[in-house]
Amino acid sequence: MSTQEASPDPELDDLYDNWYIDEPQGPVVQPDEIIVPCLPTLSDELYHLIMAPVSLCALLLLSFLIRRRKLCISCCWGVPGVLSPLNLLEASGSSWVPCAVFGLLVSSIVRLFLDPTAMNFIPNNYGGLLGYCWKILALFYYPALYYPLLASNRLDGPRAQKTIGYSVGTILSWMHCGALIWQKAECPQSQQYYRYYSLLSTLPQIFCLVVLSLMYPVLLVQQCRRSSNSKQMSNRNYYLKYLKNLLKSKRSKRSKDSVSIGSQVSLNLCSYLCPPHRGLNLPLRPILAVTVSVLSAYQVALLLLVGFLPTVQKIRGAIDTELVLMIAGFGITIDDDKQKSVEYIVYYIWATEVCYITALILSCTVTVTMLLRSLVKHRWALQCLFAGQASKVFLDSRPLQKTSPTLASWMSHISYQASVTCIGLILQHLLLFIFHMIVTFLIIIPIAYGKFQILRKLLENTWPFWLLLFLVTVVHQLCARFLFLKGNPSQITRRKSLFMLTYLMFPVNFLRGELLALARLVVSVIFNVIHFCRLDLSLLQHSAQGWDPGYRNYCNFLIIEATECHPVVRAFCLLIKPNRWKQPDLEEGIHLMPADGRLMKGARSQLARARWGLAYTLIHNPSLLCHRGHKSINGGSPTCPT
Amino acid sequence: MSTQEASPDPELDDLYDNWYIDEPQGPVVQPDEIIVPCLPTLSDELYHLIMAPVSLCALLLLSFLIRRRKLCISCCWGVPGVLSPLNLLEASGSSWVPCAVFGLLVSSIVRLFLDPTAMNFIPNNYGGLLGYCWKILALFYYPALYYPLLASNRLDGPRAQKTIGYSVGTILSWMHCGALIWQKAECPQSQQYYRYYSLLSTLPQIFCLVVLSLMYPVLLVQQCRRSSNSKQMSNRNYYLKYLKNLLKSKRSKRSKDSVSIGSQVSLNLCSYLCPPHRGLNLPLRPILAVTVSVLSAYQVALLLLVGFLPTVQKIRGAIDTELVLMIAGFGITIDDDKQKSVEYIVYYIWATEVCYITALILSCTVTVTMLLRSLVKHRWALQCLFAGQASKVFLDSRPLQKTSPTLASWMSHISYQASVTCIGLILQHLLLFIFHMIVTFLIIIPIAYGKFQILRKLLENTWPFWLLLFLVTVVHQLCARFLFLKGNPSQITRRKSLFMLTYLMFPVNFLRGELLALARLVVSVIFNVIHFCRLDLSLLQHSAQGWDPGYRNYCNFLIIEATECHPVVRAFCLLIKPNRWKQPDLEEGIHLMPADGRLMKGARSQLARARWGLAYTLIHNPSLLCHRGHKSINGGSPTCPT
Repeated sequence: MSTQEASPDPELDDLYDNWYIDEPQGPVVQPDEIIVPCLPTLSDELYHLIMAPVSLCALLLLSFLIRRRKLCISCCWGVPGVLSPLNLLEASGSSWVPCAVFGLLVSSIVRLFLDPTAMNFIPNNYGGLLGYCWKILALFYYPALYYPLLASNRLDGPRAQKTIGYSVGTILSWMHCGALIWQKAECPQSQQYYRYYSLLSTLPQIFCLVVLSLMYPVLLVQQCRRSSNSKQMSNRNYYLKYLKNLLKSKRSKRSKDSVSIGSQVSLNLCSYLCPPHRGLNLPLRPILAVTVSVLSAYQVALLLLVGFLPTVQKIRGAIDTELVLMIAGFGITIDDDKQKSVEYIVYYIWATEVCYITALILSCTVTVTMLLRSLVKHRWALQCLFAGQASKVFLDSRPLQKTSPTLASWMSHISYQASVTCIGLILQHLLLFIFHMIVTFLIIIPIAYGKFQILRKLLENTWPFWLLLFLVTVVHQLCARFLFLKGNPSQITRRKSLFMLTYLMFPVNFLRGELLALARLVVSVIFNVIHFCRLDLSLLQHSAQGWDPGYRNYCNFLIIEATECHPVVRAFCLLIKPNRWKQPDLEEGIHLMPADGRLMKGARSQLARARWGLAYTLIHNPSLLCHRGHKSINGGSPTCPT
Repeated sequence: MSTQEASPDPELDDLYDNWYIDEPQGPVVQPDEIIVPCLPTLSDELYHLIMAPVSLCALLLLSFLIRRRKLCISCCWGVPGVLSPLNLLEASGSSWVPCAVFGLLVSSIVRLFLDPTAMNFIPNNYGGLLGYCWKILALFYYPALYYPLLASNRLDGPRAQKTIGYSVGTILSWMHCGALIWQKAECPQSQQYYRYYSLLSTLPQIFCLVVLSLMYPVLLVQQCRRSSNSKQMSNRNYYLKYLKNLLKSKRSKRSKDSVSIGSQVSLNLCSYLCPPHRGLNLPLRPILAVTVSVLSAYQVALLLLVGFLPTVQKIRGAIDTELVLMIAGFGITIDDDKQKSVEYIVYYIWATEVCYITALILSCTVTVTMLLRSLVKHRWALQCLFAGQASKVFLDSRPLQKTSPTLASWMSHISYQASVTCIGLILQHLLLFIFHMIVTFLIIIPIAYGKFQILRKLLENTWPFWLLLFLVTVVHQLCARFLFLKGNPSQITRRKSLFMLTYLMFPVNFLRGELLALARLVVSVIFNVIHFCRLDLSLLQHSAQGWDPGYRNYCNFLIIEATECHPVVRAFCLLIKPNRWKQPDLEEGIHLMPADGRLMKGARSQLARARWGLAYTLIHNPSLLCHRGHKSINGGSPTCPT
């Protein structure tokens, strides 16, 4: 569907070009407007023909590496294991690699649908059923192509395996990055929409690949230097620190009186987007969601820009006195002087362009602000849920239960966030463009040039009305303040006069009500359009908020996040099972109770209490931790001097 | 502003008429289409020239009647008092007369702005500053004209005064009603919009006047028969009954198992719009608001109907083969056969008309349903506030304090509700019309006639996409249900596969997300448009609901209603101050405590407790009530046999 909207028939496009440029100017094309078709040495076909087998080989290599150590006892090679792309339920850790790969993926997918030339290397891909089938295939091909880039980061085996993983990642990312940069350096210009569109739309991909090409070598070097379980240590430290933070006595509140007003304002502004840390790290998934949302919004914004601006600039360049005569034929006279008319029209078109660009910039800013704000809200919601205050978040007391729709929503949340951001950006841009056009053409130009004085004429005719409405509003407020309310707490007095005034002002209030209805419409449209890209807010009022599919998806996502990533539970598990520190399968499910569940209720609570007591002791006496391991711990623990 | 939209220049209108009818048919006007200009015997000028002085005289008469009895001691005639139009803070009593007068008023005002001929009797009233000034004058003239109709009902003096008041009301309402019916009987047709528009738009006024003409004689007869304080008795009984109801032990819940499914469904449907009474009468103001809203919505709906239908029907009648040829000149061919083409075009226009009318009927139904629903919600909110559960209503704990903005909002609530209903009806109609057009032209006509097969072509090209999205949704649900969730309470298992599936499905979920974003947009637009006319719901989500000016107005209104109309407080006052039964100034403020407020805290609570004890005794022993009066009570009390 988006292809239909985004990519009009190229023949039709040419036709319009002819209409606007050729008719007034004749078929004279400026020499700097000619774009020579360019074929890079490493064409797209060749790129995919090389990279697809390389990725497959890397994938096979990596999957033969893992799990072998477990099954090594029974057979020599073992079966190749399932490569986990990333741990989406981890509460901390570096998120550079996953963010870069997801960004790469979303940029490829959005380009696939917005840029009709993205799949030019496949024969007969234009339109029709076959084109769609190719695109469906591409939907599965791209994640498979980039899979090894992600999986190289997640090998949880011994040191040698990790080294191999990072090496594979380095080589692959360098190959991808080099190929893309080579292509774009050879052929920076293309014929679609705008000469640099292809280059600009590839920039996020290049950026993500550069990040990967830098991160993998860094990881490789770190791996060679550091001990093997230092990453798990950092995770463990985070959970234990969080628990310690919780068990500490509450800090005394800082007095706010001594802070100056300026710094207080900046503090409030700052806390709107990045509140104080308070010990809780953001999980990986919301960060991923915001990253892919920003990158897909970039693609949409770029398309909005290049789909409008070059065309309008061409039209602006082609305005001349002939067009003014043609317009005059329809009865529209702009100015008596022809040359001045041309100047005016050019100026108006230029003003429209400015409105369009400022609206686009503003909508991008608003979208990014909203996405950052949603991170803040997400952290707040997680903290509330961790503290058991579900009703504060959902405004009703729903059970935090994992059901299959909940999990299905969790699986699709990142992509939903990105999609909703794209549509939200378009809506925002539309709204802001209309707003800017109204301000420019009904307020600024009439004041500056004396044209389009629609508002002035309207005001000249209707000013008694506006004066009346204003006076009635003032009378209402004054009467309510000084006549009808007396005493403290206020009591209504002079009731007969109050009722009489209410009755007599009824018709005028009816007119004020029309203004209120208009204000209601405008406020709700503006608020809902601005917050459209935030899935953590419902667009409906609270009693019907569950009907908003986006918000419902977010609620389900939040339930899974809160139940799976509770840092206190994780810290507890780490404390009472020190022999599991080294093993990578903490994530494979936390079992605090015996699996058979045949313990009596009393014994169970006794056991739980004993365990909590143990955990409490250990968190306050970290030096005891190292003496609890059943097996000796490889490498030095930061809390236990050896 | 509404005049600008609603009343296009009549000359322009004629021009269009010429365009559509005369060009294809020649200047042949059907004899049944000629509307002879009609001048009624009682013209509008004459009507206002007679009724304005009569109303003024009635007003003076009534204002000389009241208060005289109070000041009679010092001087012979006393000063004329302020005529209270109606008691807007009364919780019960007949609301026929106020509803009829407010309905009359709102019909006049809406007609004044929607019907350009409503003020034809004033010279030079078309457009311009002068026309607006006349309209502003009319905004104050109409409430003054109908003031005596309302005030006649509110004379709280002795029997003779009431009889005079009702007589005046009867005479005035008969005069108004007779004049209007006479005018319309003589000249039922007019030239504006549609021949019967003027008649149809006057119908609500006639209806309201008929109600008044019937109610005043009935009141007069009742007044002659009944005792003078029986109305206050009925009020008093309501408050006491409410208190009794509260103090009774709670009723046992009826078992719902024995009820059949059919009756349960109808019970639920019924309780959506008219829940069980539970002792609390609705106050007058919300009833007034709903009445005026319905009447103003009728005027708007009528204008929507007559502004569209006759024109389109004329166009439909003027379609012939020449038009088909003209359309073919633009390259649009509907059918090879010319006659069939004409039939098709006529059929399409007819289908559009049907869509328009059904959308209008449906939007009127929805508006009325929403208004009735808002009454239910208002009753619920009042009950919650009476029970002290303000946070249940406002979702935050705000103090129920009367401030001047609160009171100002309360004064304008009825008219705001009517205005918002008008705009809401227009929005609903627009939405439903678009929806009906889409359904008709993209679904019904393609299936029935094989035309406009846009959807089929789209589906033929893109079905692999829809199949893919459907399959992926099913796969997500099935995997979540049977693979990744195990045990009770559910635990997430096979995490590596879950993460891998999440990653691989990311691009497809991106497409599903676009559908979700579309669904979000559609759901929020539909919900907010349908609920636009309900001021008791915010159009924004809960954390920003105060930014909705309509909802804020309703909240302020609700605060005043709840603090002023608490039936328990009123019953309490009635119980402990029996000598005030007869006096009309219960409404003049309830003073439970000594005015100087110099009592100590202990003494105060002791006094309050003693008073509540007294009230509790009296409500359970109503026979004691009649022995408490300091003065003897005129007329028989229903609870105290004399």
